[in-house]
Amino acid sequence: MLALEGAFMIPALIIAAVLGEKASVIAFAEVIGLCLIIGAAGIILKADFNKVYAKEGYVTVALAWILLSLVGALPFTLSGSIPNYIDAIFECVSGFTTTGASILKNVEALPRSMLYWRSFTHWLGGMGVLVFVLAIMPLNAGSAGFHILRAESPGPSVGKFVPKMRSNARILYSIYVAMTIIMAILLIIFKMPAFDAVCITFGTAGTGGFGILADSCASYTSAQQIIITVFMILFGINFSIYFLLLIGNIKAVFRDEETMTYLAIIAVSTLIIMFNIRGFYSTWGEALKDSAFQVGSIITTSGFATTDFNKWPELSKTILVTLMFIGASAGSTGGGLKVSRILILLKSSRRTLKKMIHPRSVKHVRLSRKTVDISVVHGVNIYIVVYCIIYALSLLLISIDDFDFTTNFTAVAATINNVGPGLGGVGPTSNFAGYSILSKLVLSADMLIGRLELFPMLLLFSPGTWRRAV
Amino acid sequence: MLALEGAFMIPALIIAAVLGEKASVIAFAEVIGLCLIIGAAGIILKADFNKVYAKEGYVTVALAWILLSLVGALPFTLSGSIPNYIDAIFECVSGFTTTGASILKNVEALPRSMLYWRSFTHWLGGMGVLVFVLAIMPLNAGSAGFHILRAESPGPSVGKFVPKMRSNARILYSIYVAMTIIMAILLIIFKMPAFDAVCITFGTAGTGGFGILADSCASYTSAQQIIITVFMILFGINFSIYFLLLIGNIKAVFRDEETMTYLAIIAVSTLIIMFNIRGFYSTWGEALKDSAFQVGSIITTSGFATTDFNKWPELSKTILVTLMFIGASAGSTGGGLKVSRILILLKSSRRTLKKMIHPRSVKHVRLSRKTVDISVVHGVNIYIVVYCIIYALSLLLISIDDFDFTTNFTAVAATINNVGPGLGGVGPTSNFAGYSILSKLVLSADMLIGRLELFPMLLLFSPGTWRRAV
Repeated sequence: MLALEGAFMIPALIIAAVLGEKASVIAFAEVIGLCLIIGAAGIILKADFNKVYAKEGYVTVALAWILLSLVGALPFTLSGSIPNYIDAIFECVSGFTTTGASILKNVEALPRSMLYWRSFTHWLGGMGVLVFVLAIMPLNAGSAGFHILRAESPGPSVGKFVPKMRSNARILYSIYVAMTIIMAILLIIFKMPAFDAVCITFGTAGTGGFGILADSCASYTSAQQIIITVFMILFGINFSIYFLLLIGNIKAVFRDEETMTYLAIIAVSTLIIMFNIRGFYSTWGEALKDSAFQVGSIITTSGFATTDFNKWPELSKTILVTLMFIGASAGSTGGGLKVSRILILLKSSRRTLKKMIHPRSVKHVRLSRKTVDISVVHGVNIYIVVYCIIYALSLLLISIDDFDFTTNFTAVAATINNVGPGLGGVGPTSNFAGYSILSKLVLSADMLIGRLELFPMLLLFSPGTWRRAV
Repeated sequence: MLALEGAFMIPALIIAAVLGEKASVIAFAEVIGLCLIIGAAGIILKADFNKVYAKEGYVTVALAWILLSLVGALPFTLSGSIPNYIDAIFECVSGFTTTGASILKNVEALPRSMLYWRSFTHWLGGMGVLVFVLAIMPLNAGSAGFHILRAESPGPSVGKFVPKMRSNARILYSIYVAMTIIMAILLIIFKMPAFDAVCITFGTAGTGGFGILADSCASYTSAQQIIITVFMILFGINFSIYFLLLIGNIKAVFRDEETMTYLAIIAVSTLIIMFNIRGFYSTWGEALKDSAFQVGSIITTSGFATTDFNKWPELSKTILVTLMFIGASAGSTGGGLKVSRILILLKSSRRTLKKMIHPRSVKHVRLSRKTVDISVVHGVNIYIVVYCIIYALSLLLISIDDFDFTTNFTAVAATINNVGPGLGGVGPTSNFAGYSILSKLVLSADMLIGRLELFPMLLLFSPGTWRRAV
């Protein structure tokens, strides 16, 4: 895996060499060398991976993400772009988890090779570095593959992708690459500079949100912003939907409750915000454009911005904060709680109420006309509980820094849901630089916890994990 | 019930008469008359209450609280003390639900009889008007009594009090009255004016928090503040603990996990805040006194204040906000989620993690050495889910008023948890007067929803409730 990460850095090395960014060349070369050595050592000392159980699967995933982030942060520090290593870790975790939260006060000062690497971590993180690794892994790791994907894939259930792991990972990966290429070409056709187009596409595909300009996406043309809006929303849809489209099963797409709800939430939120912010704009069109961009950016947890929504009315801001928690669809590259989880929560709450009215009625929770297993319902409920507990603990820890409540609350929301910007001191025109080292580590952990759906990271820090299984 | 409420207004009428508060005399007299007439009509038209099922129990409780609040608000409006009836409803709901949130900009301008009635609603609400009604209700309403108490009693389980309803209600009520009298006498011994002592005692017993001075409790002496602190904490303990103490079962008290955790949370929070706010005070003692008062006031959801904690460092404020959610013990007069629920949540989360490590292990959640039924665990989990949904909806609705996020977030926290003051615009020196009518109604609903533990109010507004049962 490290060898792969090293290989992924080669384009950045080439960019650095071509543009004559000396410090960056040396930094990337050093880290690539390191990756290859460790990677080679790993292959020689290769452990027997044929027997990987649930626990080991989760722990492997958690460790892998941490390791990749630690190594991925090295070029930033070695080149002097981000001198503080903790800051570099924050930035790299933010990249790999496709969060897009930054500690950089002036992103435009970064060398282009570093900007490229920074955006590329989004793209890598987007589909899950491990799904990618999985697709080119030897077939005999089948059982390991299953558990790794269970930990990796965002959302309560992987759905159709569980059985034929390897070929499915390839299908996912192909769709992902194809959409990435289409988007980049479209942006270039609409006259975005190629370097910008590639970096912004990486950020959109991974629903990450790192831009390469200080004002995020505000200085791009309307046409370019609309393309970004559409693709953000597309990358927030469950990828199995595209598979269904490819095989021509349109009916099943319309029957998919999660996708339909996801699109409905976007439409309703966009309309309410459009009316709410109308006073800031001279035409309805402009209000609609910014409203749609921001709703798409936040619900997919990308975190790009075309305007400082921190200055919007409170209703619009509260809707955006709510969207941060809702998040994108399961099986997409987006973060948050996921629309399908929200649907299950709403339906199970309604079921509980109904049971109080008619105690003897046994009603099942149904999603997309299929009965959801009661263990999944309980699992989602406990997920929210654990989520709230982690949220409260994080909030308490970062409140030591004495920023105001809005800043702290949305900082945790923006990291654990992998969004990027929050409100107040961490709004779209601000950054996370002001937080202390402790807070940056807590928020980095939140990004990883959110990205890996809570449990793998928790298991990593649970004492029982390291005891011998009975 | 209305007849009873009318009877309860008589002391206020006497105070008004003695002090020559003319408008108040007329207002109370009118409302008492109205109550007696409706009450008498109710007795004559008395429905057959022998068959009350779960659903009807919940709905009765919810309707009763709303009706009592609507009538209880009348004296405020009729006397002109609170001219706007919606404001009066907010104030009265806040009183009966023992929240203590106020829309009054200058509480000291209120006539004394109104102040008395306002504080007395806390005391009535405190133990639950219906537990009280229950104790003097005819015995044949046994089955109704069970379901009414289930809806009424704060906390996941009523514990020992379910079987012998009537006598138990009397025991609870006696403890409540005894503690109230002891506290009032203590305050008077320590030279608090009798009227203040009685009103403050009502507010403490119900863990409500209406004061009669603009600065809440800041101008009382240290000794008086310490008495209030101790009694706030005592009224936040499960009342069955006092029953155990009375019958001499000290061992069971120490074995009660909820009480021990509750006291531990208070101790730890007080210490951290004491260190955090030390810079504002000249001595450690003063810091400790204010810290303990505020922690006691917030965790028991009373809401009294001796200082403007809105100016405290962010860590202390975030701890207080966290305490708002934790709340007091089940079976006390306090609000919030309750310590026992938090314990069950933490333990069930840990159990889920353990199950991921050892999939075949079946571990039970245990509280106070007793196994908690799995249906209770699931119930608590779904409780949190419903709680979060209501929270998000309320936040969205009141954000239309365009106050800042901190104010809105803590306004919902302070009302749904029945605390009273929040942070920012609804901090201890501010009030809820600035909110629109819509927001005041939403927050009033939150107070009732929080007080009645979510479900009775939700059932009231669920269409299925009003259909004929199958």
